Amino acid sequence: MRSIADYQNVFQNYLYAHRFDRSPTELYEPVNYILSIGGKRLRPLLALMGCELFTDDLEKALPTAMAVEVFHNFTLLHDDIMDAAPLRRGQPTVHIKYNVNTGILSGDVMLISAYDFLLNTEGSSDLKIALMQIFNKMATEVCEGQQLDMNFEHLNDVTIAEYVRMIELKTSVLIAAAFQMGALIGGATAEVAERLYAFGRHVGIAFQIQDDILDTFGDPEKFGKKVGGDIIQNKKTLLVLTVYESGSPLQRADLQQLMATPTEDEASKIKAVRQIFDAVGVRQLAEKDMGKHLQTAFENLDETPLSIERKIYLKSWANDLMSREK
Amino acid sequence: MRSIADYQNVFQNYLYAHRFDRSPTELYEPVNYILSIGGKRLRPLLALMGCELFTDDLEKALPTAMAVEVFHNFTLLHDDIMDAAPLRRGQPTVHIKYNVNTGILSGDVMLISAYDFLLNTEGSSDLKIALMQIFNKMATEVCEGQQLDMNFEHLNDVTIAEYVRMIELKTSVLIAAAFQMGALIGGATAEVAERLYAFGRHVGIAFQIQDDILDTFGDPEKFGKKVGGDIIQNKKTLLVLTVYESGSPLQRADLQQLMATPTEDEASKIKAVRQIFDAVGVRQLAEKDMGKHLQTAFENLDETPLSIERKIYLKSWANDLMSREK
Repeated sequence: MRSIADYQNVFQNYLYAHRFDRSPTELYEPVNYILSIGGKRLRPLLALMGCELFTDDLEKALPTAMAVEVFHNFTLLHDDIMDAAPLRRGQPTVHIKYNVNTGILSGDVMLISAYDFLLNTEGSSDLKIALMQIFNKMATEVCEGQQLDMNFEHLNDVTIAEYVRMIELKTSVLIAAAFQMGALIGGATAEVAERLYAFGRHVGIAFQIQDDILDTFGDPEKFGKKVGGDIIQNKKTLLVLTVYESGSPLQRADLQQLMATPTEDEASKIKAVRQIFDAVGVRQLAEKDMGKHLQTAFENLDETPLSIERKIYLKSWANDLMSREK
Repeated sequence: MRSIADYQNVFQNYLYAHRFDRSPTELYEPVNYILSIGGKRLRPLLALMGCELFTDDLEKALPTAMAVEVFHNFTLLHDDIMDAAPLRRGQPTVHIKYNVNTGILSGDVMLISAYDFLLNTEGSSDLKIALMQIFNKMATEVCEGQQLDMNFEHLNDVTIAEYVRMIELKTSVLIAAAFQMGALIGGATAEVAERLYAFGRHVGIAFQIQDDILDTFGDPEKFGKKVGGDIIQNKKTLLVLTVYESGSPLQRADLQQLMATPTEDEASKIKAVRQIFDAVGVRQLAEKDMGKHLQTAFENLDETPLSIERKIYLKSWANDLMSREK
């Protein structure tokens, strides 16, 4: 296995060599734009790692890694339109830099292009069909997760279990499927690949819980976005739902009132909400949840016939991911 | 071979049995809605006809017919958002009946679902991969055609050749691919299926030219939409481009002036534009073009080893399609 930087480098080179230098440029330039904004490339990295667990021929997983990254960026592009988000990783979003119609259509062609990359995977037709089936189930679930996320904005009685199911669909199935597909390309049996899917799924959920925690409790010096952004936007994150489920009636009422009141002073709102979070102990409760998912991820990993070195590598990678600060 | 009504009936039953009765309903209800609005079901019909040219087991082509219809309706859904169209076949469009975000996301899940239906086609993995490749090339081209269509709105020097290429991409490649995929499922060789693709491509172009003609010259009693709608919207249809290419400088200038002036009296604008069209003889020129494409379609059909009865059936179907009045 290689260093994370190494995988990122291999992928970055492939991405650069497969830029969408096609016409009409009005359609493809926004695709290159959003793909160039960057990010951690977590999902393609997982496809590559999954493959290299079973073969040295890492290159075989590159088209699928690309499919996964193109798909991920397609979801970002369309989600940004739906959320009317002006910025993505500090850069103007596609519908702001270009326009909404361009955003819709360029997103559509990205989704189609993801299938092109899957189809370009080297291997038997049976393998390609297996990849397509995993990919399609995942892609459907991601749309369902996005719909649930939009539904939840208008609901006041979302449970933690429903919230976790939403982030599982919206985020973690893609992480899981990337890992599973990489493993299949590398030569894993269907059964072992399923275990790695479960590993990825629970790592993905833990990762997303960590995201909610960092948004409120992250180190402002290290966190990429503004700490407290979720509080200002009155987002019903896991932290809020934990107050609803584990706080006293008074704590719940106070938080609901804070969230229903238009923000005048951002800093004092963040402070007031954090006081409730601290009184309920939501950070500890959320970290406990996160830990449970990581534990389940590791149990699934332990059920595979991978070498002890590879298991340690993957666990250490997951632990590093969880102790990130941005 | 069966009657057109028979094919439509077989497809309609399959469509009804495969409604999207899934959750979240906010995501899938708009999918059922747009699929229920109807239309001629031309594309799935072609998949079924293409299959039955080679086998009596028509059912085999149903999932692919469904993929094609779901894809077509996905493009209508997203195009209606981009065009800000309030009505589709006399019914409110999805983004009007629901909202734009729903329209984007439900469209996305339709595109993904089209691949699900393709994957559910009975047959070898090799066949499925062949279908996927045809489908993906087509889907990419449809997006490119839609982009060109949007680009052309802002251009004044579009040639007839460029316009025909645009309608080929936006419309006819889907008709062609539906026919080709149906034939492959039925058991056609790749070479024969290619010929049928070419047949479908040219029929599709002729069909779209006919659409432009009918919008201006159709019988108001029989035409589904308002006759003259393209003129009121100042659309640069084939008729307009024919004046630009074949009219005198004065006729061109007159038409451009009419198109640049805000419409006050619709009836008199339609009359004035039609007078220029008639003086240039655009209807005859467009019908000649249409006839040429139909001829090329038939030449491709004649190159196949299909029986004379089947060739006559297909030619008569295409001729009927061209003499439709709506």
